[in-house]
Amino acid sequence: MISDNCGLNLLHPIAGFSLGTTCAAIKTPGRRDLVIMKLAKGSKVAALFTQNAFCAAPVLVAKRALQRGCSRYLVVNTGNANAGTGERGVQHAELTCQEIAKLTGVDVSDVMPFSTGVIGEYLPIDRLLKAIPGALSHLDEDGWSEAANGIMTTDTRPKGASVKLTIPTSTKTDDIDGPTRAVNGTLTLTGIAKGSGMIKPDMATMLSFIATDATVDAELLHRALRLAAEKSFNRITVDGDTSTNDALVFAATGCGDVIIDEGNFELFATHLEALCTELAQACVRDGEGATKFVSIVTTGAASQLEAKATAYTVAESPLVKTALGASDPNWGRILAAVGRAPIPNLDISKVSVSLNGTAIVEGGARALGYTEQAGQAAMQPTDIHIVIDLGRGESSETVWTTDLGHEYVRINAEYRT
Amino acid sequence: MISDNCGLNLLHPIAGFSLGTTCAAIKTPGRRDLVIMKLAKGSKVAALFTQNAFCAAPVLVAKRALQRGCSRYLVVNTGNANAGTGERGVQHAELTCQEIAKLTGVDVSDVMPFSTGVIGEYLPIDRLLKAIPGALSHLDEDGWSEAANGIMTTDTRPKGASVKLTIPTSTKTDDIDGPTRAVNGTLTLTGIAKGSGMIKPDMATMLSFIATDATVDAELLHRALRLAAEKSFNRITVDGDTSTNDALVFAATGCGDVIIDEGNFELFATHLEALCTELAQACVRDGEGATKFVSIVTTGAASQLEAKATAYTVAESPLVKTALGASDPNWGRILAAVGRAPIPNLDISKVSVSLNGTAIVEGGARALGYTEQAGQAAMQPTDIHIVIDLGRGESSETVWTTDLGHEYVRINAEYRT
Repeated sequence: MISDNCGLNLLHPIAGFSLGTTCAAIKTPGRRDLVIMKLAKGSKVAALFTQNAFCAAPVLVAKRALQRGCSRYLVVNTGNANAGTGERGVQHAELTCQEIAKLTGVDVSDVMPFSTGVIGEYLPIDRLLKAIPGALSHLDEDGWSEAANGIMTTDTRPKGASVKLTIPTSTKTDDIDGPTRAVNGTLTLTGIAKGSGMIKPDMATMLSFIATDATVDAELLHRALRLAAEKSFNRITVDGDTSTNDALVFAATGCGDVIIDEGNFELFATHLEALCTELAQACVRDGEGATKFVSIVTTGAASQLEAKATAYTVAESPLVKTALGASDPNWGRILAAVGRAPIPNLDISKVSVSLNGTAIVEGGARALGYTEQAGQAAMQPTDIHIVIDLGRGESSETVWTTDLGHEYVRINAEYRT
Repeated sequence: MISDNCGLNLLHPIAGFSLGTTCAAIKTPGRRDLVIMKLAKGSKVAALFTQNAFCAAPVLVAKRALQRGCSRYLVVNTGNANAGTGERGVQHAELTCQEIAKLTGVDVSDVMPFSTGVIGEYLPIDRLLKAIPGALSHLDEDGWSEAANGIMTTDTRPKGASVKLTIPTSTKTDDIDGPTRAVNGTLTLTGIAKGSGMIKPDMATMLSFIATDATVDAELLHRALRLAAEKSFNRITVDGDTSTNDALVFAATGCGDVIIDEGNFELFATHLEALCTELAQACVRDGEGATKFVSIVTTGAASQLEAKATAYTVAESPLVKTALGASDPNWGRILAAVGRAPIPNLDISKVSVSLNGTAIVEGGARALGYTEQAGQAAMQPTDIHIVIDLGRGESSETVWTTDLGHEYVRINAEYRT
């Protein structure tokens, strides 16, 4: 049971992890735009951040906090990314952390800040600081659903996923030298994410917060997160634009039964990856202006790198994306994109392409028996599955993306108005 | 006098180069869609082709012809790219060449074919062959303007450029061992181009044909073309998609006064580059759905490669392009694109950005004194000049591109309907 696929009604609470959401009027009065998350003492935190050189002020401050060890509070505002704001932006992020530290009595380095929204404008810091007590007063282990709403920007719907998992574990009283697997324990994984545009995460995602009640040491926690992100958040693109504010945070409170060690790590990591994939795909499905959910699978590549680069080249081609939006089986554009992908000495006579199971290209040219009608029919569903076989190796990779239509242009032309 | 900037009325004829245009009903009855160009005997031809692995059938056949030496006829159809058509596509391109060879008495390897249009459909070869005599009967040195129309697809206007140039030259009676520069000669350069979408040429362009009456040997002709293409056609992008059919052809008929050698090569090459830049920029100005002509200049880069990659990353960002289309000075998106460009160890505190002369970013953050009103005003003109100074070296590069708006989506959603 990898995923309950439960929607927001069934986001299981995580013992030792509570969330409070309020309205700070960052950009729009009356909108939930400030979320604070509290972690039980002794929690471990792993995080991945954007590789964008112009990373936002809160990313700089959060990275610093992470290096100092454990964290007790995460604070997220939407409506303003606090990016491209220089020294003043860093001061604003620090002031936010200081206010929480002052009100809760923790060390300022135990607070990690996150922002998302318009780039290049200063935070309305007074309004933000004034709203912090309200968020703290709402802290609740059942606050996941409201927090999923509170971190949205151009998202049209909140995104969450949750799973309960029975897993063999040593017990906390086990002898360290000889842990036994006599018992099974139950752990819970719950996560939320936001993101809809400027989506091509690079080692991280837009914003996503995941927690578990298992006991996981810092090294295993980070390893599990890296593995999961690589195959989930790092395999999606809406528009090829990497956000300045991407952050993926994974907290383990240790308040539950299960202890993760090398013995049960793989099972744990697999379930985390499944949960991350569900959240990442939810971001693509809610991609700005998206009418299609497109899986692009490259098989028969000479290397993973080649498979991934080919899938991304097709996924980010504006011509492929507009054809997908029009449900037009203009597969020549897929070929043209494969043809400019970074594949040394591609033998096109070995390339085949299928679209929702309909063979469209074989031996590098139009498939025998392909008809325009068959192509039209294959393009109708919302979910489109394109398989590109390069016929030159054993590697395969999958990337998820959207179509490109008028709605994307409208949203991004009018974003700041 | 680099360019007459003359429009199509003033495309100077080239002695020894004639063009004939007719209607073959390739895609749309009654539309001029077939152009044949005849080169005087002894002409030299250089050509650059798409680097797309899925290059079209006519590109394969034209490359083969080029390797065999001189060419006498170029034949271009629009409405169908004859790409992704496998062996049958190659046969169609060969049949076209054979028909021209038969009717004119030249060797079949002296005919080079070119196609542009929809990818993945077979040529209506019967209609094409039947129209060849009509095109041949219209061959005329004054046929440039009609040919510029005859090679269009989604272009909204024909594109041509022409220049007459007085240049020092040896004379044809000079002693080979000691050419003198006692005389000046006049040479003419005239070229046409088509291209509006699927525009990110890679070592070549969409389709462009340029001719001169100068005498130029094959090596110098190719060298001049490579140099010129690198700084013109290879610096433009509409949508980042490289066509399967790109070809840039340069013919020297040798029917005029001037002989190009190492002594006057640089002057010749400079003027060729200027003409190519004019044609390349005309393609961007006519980019699908374009409302802006955008120059993106990277300066202060550590290498040419870095400067070029940064400019392209910004030029191809869908978020930057939609902001440009909305005349929205959302410069945070420019920063975000620079931040994900492949620049190792970028020190963002050294980065500055200006837009039509208005400083928007200094020291990696919003420029002091920048106001939203100033940004709004700077974004109004059709021509937008963005300068990104990376502050880490001496290299600079310029890339030309367009905005992204509803019209691009409409054109490419409806292209085949």
